[in-house]
Amino acid sequence: MRDQRAEALAAILVRYSTRVEAGDVCVIQSSTAAEPLVQAVYEGVLRAGGLPVLSLTTEGAAAALYELASDDQLDWVAPPAMWAAEEADVRIAIMADQNPRELSEVDPRRQQRTSRARKPLMETVMRRAAAGEHRWSLTLFPTHAYAGEAGMSLAAYEDFYYAACLATDHDPVTAWQRQSDQVRRLAEWIQGREEVHITGPGTDITLDVSGRTWIPCVGEHNMPDGEFFTGPVEDSARGEVSFSFPASYGGREVAGVRLRFEDGRVVDASADRGEAFLIETLDTDDGARRLGELGIGTNYGIATGTKEILLDEKIGGTVHLAIGMSYPETGGVNESAVHWDMVCDLRQGGSVVVDGEELQRDGQFVV
Amino acid sequence: MRDQRAEALAAILVRYSTRVEAGDVCVIQSSTAAEPLVQAVYEGVLRAGGLPVLSLTTEGAAAALYELASDDQLDWVAPPAMWAAEEADVRIAIMADQNPRELSEVDPRRQQRTSRARKPLMETVMRRAAAGEHRWSLTLFPTHAYAGEAGMSLAAYEDFYYAACLATDHDPVTAWQRQSDQVRRLAEWIQGREEVHITGPGTDITLDVSGRTWIPCVGEHNMPDGEFFTGPVEDSARGEVSFSFPASYGGREVAGVRLRFEDGRVVDASADRGEAFLIETLDTDDGARRLGELGIGTNYGIATGTKEILLDEKIGGTVHLAIGMSYPETGGVNESAVHWDMVCDLRQGGSVVVDGEELQRDGQFVV
Repeated sequence: MRDQRAEALAAILVRYSTRVEAGDVCVIQSSTAAEPLVQAVYEGVLRAGGLPVLSLTTEGAAAALYELASDDQLDWVAPPAMWAAEEADVRIAIMADQNPRELSEVDPRRQQRTSRARKPLMETVMRRAAAGEHRWSLTLFPTHAYAGEAGMSLAAYEDFYYAACLATDHDPVTAWQRQSDQVRRLAEWIQGREEVHITGPGTDITLDVSGRTWIPCVGEHNMPDGEFFTGPVEDSARGEVSFSFPASYGGREVAGVRLRFEDGRVVDASADRGEAFLIETLDTDDGARRLGELGIGTNYGIATGTKEILLDEKIGGTVHLAIGMSYPETGGVNESAVHWDMVCDLRQGGSVVVDGEELQRDGQFVV
Repeated sequence: MRDQRAEALAAILVRYSTRVEAGDVCVIQSSTAAEPLVQAVYEGVLRAGGLPVLSLTTEGAAAALYELASDDQLDWVAPPAMWAAEEADVRIAIMADQNPRELSEVDPRRQQRTSRARKPLMETVMRRAAAGEHRWSLTLFPTHAYAGEAGMSLAAYEDFYYAACLATDHDPVTAWQRQSDQVRRLAEWIQGREEVHITGPGTDITLDVSGRTWIPCVGEHNMPDGEFFTGPVEDSARGEVSFSFPASYGGREVAGVRLRFEDGRVVDASADRGEAFLIETLDTDDGARRLGELGIGTNYGIATGTKEILLDEKIGGTVHLAIGMSYPETGGVNESAVHWDMVCDLRQGGSVVVDGEELQRDGQFVV
């Protein structure tokens, strides 16, 4: 049975997010559980005149690789993945985890090794994206796993999720264009300013963003979407931040993360759960202890945490910081195999002050 | 839940059929429905030190392509498919149809167009296989569709299928080595002989096989397996043949096929069902009206037709002829985008006579 909402989401991804045109090589990257949405996107790409290439994995392939592979096998990057990074005009990636703990017993050093091996790919994609040669979008397909993590039934999660994607709107493309106006205005307001000061429970951190570019996120790279972000000056972060939302990374659940920064570098890190993994990840490489991103969520249609960062970082009234690699289009220059977003909730008391002027108080924008 | 028999089949494919070794690039080609077997093969390749690459499609992708694609889209061959043909050391292909009629409404000219576009790929693979640079194996994963076509429940089909693959044997690799002895002896017996004369109900056909190489099939390229075959001299076939088994091709069901040959060429063709499609396929290109293969089944563990050629052509007491492309390792030189096997049952009365000596009578070998 085909879900009309999955068809609508596919249309958003193909026609709005990545604007597939005739002749575009379009890689559809996903896993077997997303088959209905993969099929709808495949058809959407064909209808747009594009050239779809499926790149599907099984739920268990990653865990098997980490468990069974030698270092040589871990280091190998398959030529089709290199080709996709170097040549694809469009990439539509659809997450569809069936078990949120699938990778929970994996040795994080093996995940880091794979990340390092794939770093040139990631850099190629980002360079090409920044140069306008590559368009990409990341979304998810509702599964029991995502629903369970969010504390919902699958039916309730589907209702919530497709609504957050505006896939239930009678004209989703126009709806996304409308939603993007407020985000663009906020990004324009902050562009050119210098110092961001974030306070909240357990949080008092200052970042320099002068000279950096703010990017409004309006449904092109993430679906659902709603944030504006930049790459803070790499040696500027100072103070403390407490991340109230769980901060899973690479399949490992970490919660209650607190980081203290001096001169841009994490000098103290702790977590209520997963602390050893947090510290191992911070030690992946030099860039992993510096910030690559500051983002401010704008989507008030996502009201509660789902433990899935794609959604949680968009929640209106939250900010997120990522340790590791920055996005070159922001002007950020931090290099790392890591990019780990962590979300800080300011809705129960908190503020974002920019060059002395209040941008947000208690989770509501005031400009 | 993991089926131990699928694990055993994966071990046969990796360790016996394709003999994966450390460093071998191994493409696993299948569709989403085969996930348990794909996962087991992926793990088997990793354990053997190989470098697995998944190439998975959805059940609906092919039908969508034929329905929606322009000629340019049909003609495009994805670079990862070209890479797999040119570079992979091993390819393990696993069929897993969920609907045997999935392609039944497709315009056959569109399928032919795709076949033509992919012909260089097929030729590359066959050339590399003949040169010992590429090892490949084709199998299937039991689905409701295959079970239904065979007139069985899924549970009964799984029992039948895994037994035919010897996956239920306590030592499948040794069992396959044992089974291969009889096939090799038969292939040695016929090698070097010249004329094959096949008679049966509605069948009286003579083929010249002089100078051609007979290949014993012992579980390397097909699983299950059991046949020996060659490429008949291209202008030699004369007489009539009636194919008692349904002869589906590219998702279209054709039944009751009768072909009459003169000087190696089909000069008259009819079918009880699917005749128009048969004739269109014969007209794909010049080679499609000539024979590319004569095969003789040796697997008496497959007793009844299943409407799936991978199994049916192996039935002990049947012979099969393929119109279209020959396999170069036989010495055959017929070129075509088509390779369509059709099975002729000789168990209810029939004989195979080679240079005047009886090889088989009423489906039983007599040498």
